[in-house]
Amino acid sequence: MKIGIAQINTTVGDFEGNRIRILEAYDILLKQGAELIIFPELVICGYPPRDLLLKPQFCIDAVKSLHKIACKIDTVPAIIGTVEYISEINQNRILFNSAAWCENRTIKQYFRKSLLPNYDVFDEARYFKAEDTPNTIEWNNKIIGVTICEDIWTYQNEKSQQKYKTNPIEQLSKIKLDLLINLSASPWHVDKEISRQNLIKNISQRLNCPIAYCNAIGGNDELIFDGESMIIDPKTKVIAQMPKFEEGIQAFNLNSPSKVEDFNKNSDIKNIHKALVLGLKDYIFKSGFNKVLIGLSGGIDSAVVAALAKEAVGFKNILGVAMPSKISSVHSIKDAEDLAQNLNIPFKILPITKPVKAIEENLANLFSGMERDIAEENIQARLRGLQLMALSNKLNHLVLTTGNKSEIAVGYCTLYGDMCGGLAVISDLPKMQVYALAKYINRNKELIPKNTINKPPSAELSPNQKDEDSLPPYPILDSILYNYIEAGLTRSEIISRGFNAQTVDWVLRKVDQNEYKRKQAAPGLKISPLAFGIGRRMPIVQKYLN
Amino acid sequence: MKIGIAQINTTVGDFEGNRIRILEAYDILLKQGAELIIFPELVICGYPPRDLLLKPQFCIDAVKSLHKIACKIDTVPAIIGTVEYISEINQNRILFNSAAWCENRTIKQYFRKSLLPNYDVFDEARYFKAEDTPNTIEWNNKIIGVTICEDIWTYQNEKSQQKYKTNPIEQLSKIKLDLLINLSASPWHVDKEISRQNLIKNISQRLNCPIAYCNAIGGNDELIFDGESMIIDPKTKVIAQMPKFEEGIQAFNLNSPSKVEDFNKNSDIKNIHKALVLGLKDYIFKSGFNKVLIGLSGGIDSAVVAALAKEAVGFKNILGVAMPSKISSVHSIKDAEDLAQNLNIPFKILPITKPVKAIEENLANLFSGMERDIAEENIQARLRGLQLMALSNKLNHLVLTTGNKSEIAVGYCTLYGDMCGGLAVISDLPKMQVYALAKYINRNKELIPKNTINKPPSAELSPNQKDEDSLPPYPILDSILYNYIEAGLTRSEIISRGFNAQTVDWVLRKVDQNEYKRKQAAPGLKISPLAFGIGRRMPIVQKYLN
Repeated sequence: MKIGIAQINTTVGDFEGNRIRILEAYDILLKQGAELIIFPELVICGYPPRDLLLKPQFCIDAVKSLHKIACKIDTVPAIIGTVEYISEINQNRILFNSAAWCENRTIKQYFRKSLLPNYDVFDEARYFKAEDTPNTIEWNNKIIGVTICEDIWTYQNEKSQQKYKTNPIEQLSKIKLDLLINLSASPWHVDKEISRQNLIKNISQRLNCPIAYCNAIGGNDELIFDGESMIIDPKTKVIAQMPKFEEGIQAFNLNSPSKVEDFNKNSDIKNIHKALVLGLKDYIFKSGFNKVLIGLSGGIDSAVVAALAKEAVGFKNILGVAMPSKISSVHSIKDAEDLAQNLNIPFKILPITKPVKAIEENLANLFSGMERDIAEENIQARLRGLQLMALSNKLNHLVLTTGNKSEIAVGYCTLYGDMCGGLAVISDLPKMQVYALAKYINRNKELIPKNTINKPPSAELSPNQKDEDSLPPYPILDSILYNYIEAGLTRSEIISRGFNAQTVDWVLRKVDQNEYKRKQAAPGLKISPLAFGIGRRMPIVQKYLN
Repeated sequence: MKIGIAQINTTVGDFEGNRIRILEAYDILLKQGAELIIFPELVICGYPPRDLLLKPQFCIDAVKSLHKIACKIDTVPAIIGTVEYISEINQNRILFNSAAWCENRTIKQYFRKSLLPNYDVFDEARYFKAEDTPNTIEWNNKIIGVTICEDIWTYQNEKSQQKYKTNPIEQLSKIKLDLLINLSASPWHVDKEISRQNLIKNISQRLNCPIAYCNAIGGNDELIFDGESMIIDPKTKVIAQMPKFEEGIQAFNLNSPSKVEDFNKNSDIKNIHKALVLGLKDYIFKSGFNKVLIGLSGGIDSAVVAALAKEAVGFKNILGVAMPSKISSVHSIKDAEDLAQNLNIPFKILPITKPVKAIEENLANLFSGMERDIAEENIQARLRGLQLMALSNKLNHLVLTTGNKSEIAVGYCTLYGDMCGGLAVISDLPKMQVYALAKYINRNKELIPKNTINKPPSAELSPNQKDEDSLPPYPILDSILYNYIEAGLTRSEIISRGFNAQTVDWVLRKVDQNEYKRKQAAPGLKISPLAFGIGRRMPIVQKYLN
């Protein structure tokens, strides 16, 4: 049997665009001789549609779009991820996250998702009803099971088994399947592809049948979908492996394995690089921009963001702006300039000295008799943000914000200052990972100036300031943050791992106190299992410290 | 039987503070002769704890705090809302949202919530497991049922019945109860108290027993809890009615109705006023501030916020700042000044003329040859935001942001400009409701200058600008917004209600396009059934228009 996998990039709510892409992919796969064609989860409307699902018309339009597609599906079936909308008595809406089996110009059968993830970034219980039992279909004398994303993730995952009352894989194991299909929109984070492939191998063995897995690809807001659709046979052989962070439309013969590139060999940093470029590109273009604006401080964060942006939109479409103050060191302007030259991007210098002076004079009466402090530091950061936003408004460039996870975690950033921008590109990378990424970016050629990488990081908001005057050294800070935020350890557990108690207390307090800044932060691309953003929902005003 | 109701104001995560308040209330009620004392839902940790519940230590600390309380509960039982934490095999955590019946220095029984709300602002399925059947207890030869918040909300609510598989009230109706207790943390919105009281009356009739309902009171982030705890008897008589938007600690005899104030007679505006003052006060003090800063434009929004702030923190603790530009009209400074005088609050004038000039000169080269447009308008708004934030940093005042729901909906506000601030006080009030609130504030005395109320609204960011040059007249805008956002109507449904199609299209597009601004907005106090914020989760980059 030849299975066509349409690993395509859709946009949330773009019914027409998505439909066109679905039908294009279908036609391509037909020409490749596919006998059965599968698409990602909710491909009709894009994932995640979030509260658009609460609009009845959105669901009606999803169904309409599916029907328009179904009309064009002939004898080769297409299995398409869709909203299944059931309007019941009392005008109560019931929604399922379903796969529609389209064949002979009709929708032959729906398969409903059994397990609705409702943790991290997922809110599916907010929208959908769960089906108790997974469904199968008989087709060409074969029994085929169709599941959706999470349905397979309980297998050998004790944490998940506890979450749900049913286990679709165990239910399906009672049937002799010839093929299991899974439609997914499974957002990527570092290392996810490895656990995912192992999971699918195990299930294929358990069910003793091949599995065809089609995952979404592309960026939608914070989430980046990596694709990496695959076909695995019960001997755990990888029959097919689709591209990573790229669209792929390809048919595979179940009986003859194709050449498989082992993406698992990619380094984490290579993956992160590809993920961020994809997330960035999709955010920019899907939101209707084609040019971006970046404040270049001469530091590592903005340099990395500029290099990523170059990959995403091309060097001509980036404007780098250095905004030195009286405090800025000579090297910081030079480093920014060198970076712009290395990347070959347009570059402007727009000093903030005069506006700073004007503001300080304006405030002088009110501030008289008081020490210079963070207020004056933030004025500089905010004037830079203001100038970037003015350029953005005038030139219609999207401002990219350049804060890393370490500084956003402890609030070492200025709200309405360096936090200005439409997308936070590296907000899920701790500082040490930003360094690693910079080295990766420089792997063939020095794009990010050596001095930017080697000099001690500084916000340059007061004379001779260094990050490490205010923060613990980054290797320590990042470890504490990892243990606190991602590993979920307590204060005393972290201290017992050998960190200084005072440092731990300081970091934890800062993380908790700065929820209010993160509430107003730009959306950030998620690349870790736990990013700030929709997957982490902390109260702002709260008094728990632990 | 004498029932003590402890309608107390707790802070999220403040185990110690909450515990002290719980024990104080218990003692007060003991002295009043209470024989049974009830507290709100999750009173141990405050509501909503959100992702703090994902920290195992948080749940352990909740249990510890409950045990500390239980030790001090003697023969008069206390029923206390708590996290019930069950650590199972494989270190899997199971949490219930429970009520603990404490008596004789021990926890005698837990009652687990059956229905977990997972819509609007609620994410309870993210954290808790649901109990299938509600529980009862025999006490003093009486059968008492204990439910938690949502457990009672399915009754006669078809929409909810569809959401859940069980109906605790129907289950309980099979038992002859002598009393039903409900512990709630039920956030307020306009008119909620009416539906709530009707619901409880109906259930009391259905079960043919009295109901003692204890609701939380106070503001936690966006949510405002109104209290209004009550005791209702099966003849639908209101035996007791606790204060609205205030703490209340009082014991009531089931057999002798107390004097009942009919809060349902309050006008919506009176309720909104009380709610906002409470939400504001709690946000300020619970976050550790005691002074606030408000940019006074001479317009209605900032005037209303200043008047509310005066109620919340007292006139001495507000600094009003007018920041006129060259464009500002004379009357706007005069109106701001009059307001400050009427409210008797400290007031400063901090013109932005010079910083605007400095910034414009700085950008002149880059902007040369281009028309003045929104870029220049936003520079003014952002310089005002910058000055307020500088004052906030220097003086440790919390900046209150003053945008209303209409302008936030269509993005008629400047990100990092007038959107600067820690709390959006009136962001859930459409403009016409802001006017109504202004009139209410002036009910006894002119606090908000007449001219502020009577003049046509203007952002004053370009010469002779009026809001209505850019926006539909507010009565029309507000109606369209209500129909789109709260009533969930489609474009064509709204047009069919008599609105101009072009206007409707413009409004709907603006709402959808400005999700990115709202993503970065300050948290706003919720007073409507559907506020921007945690209860409305729209994708930012999406192409659905309907």
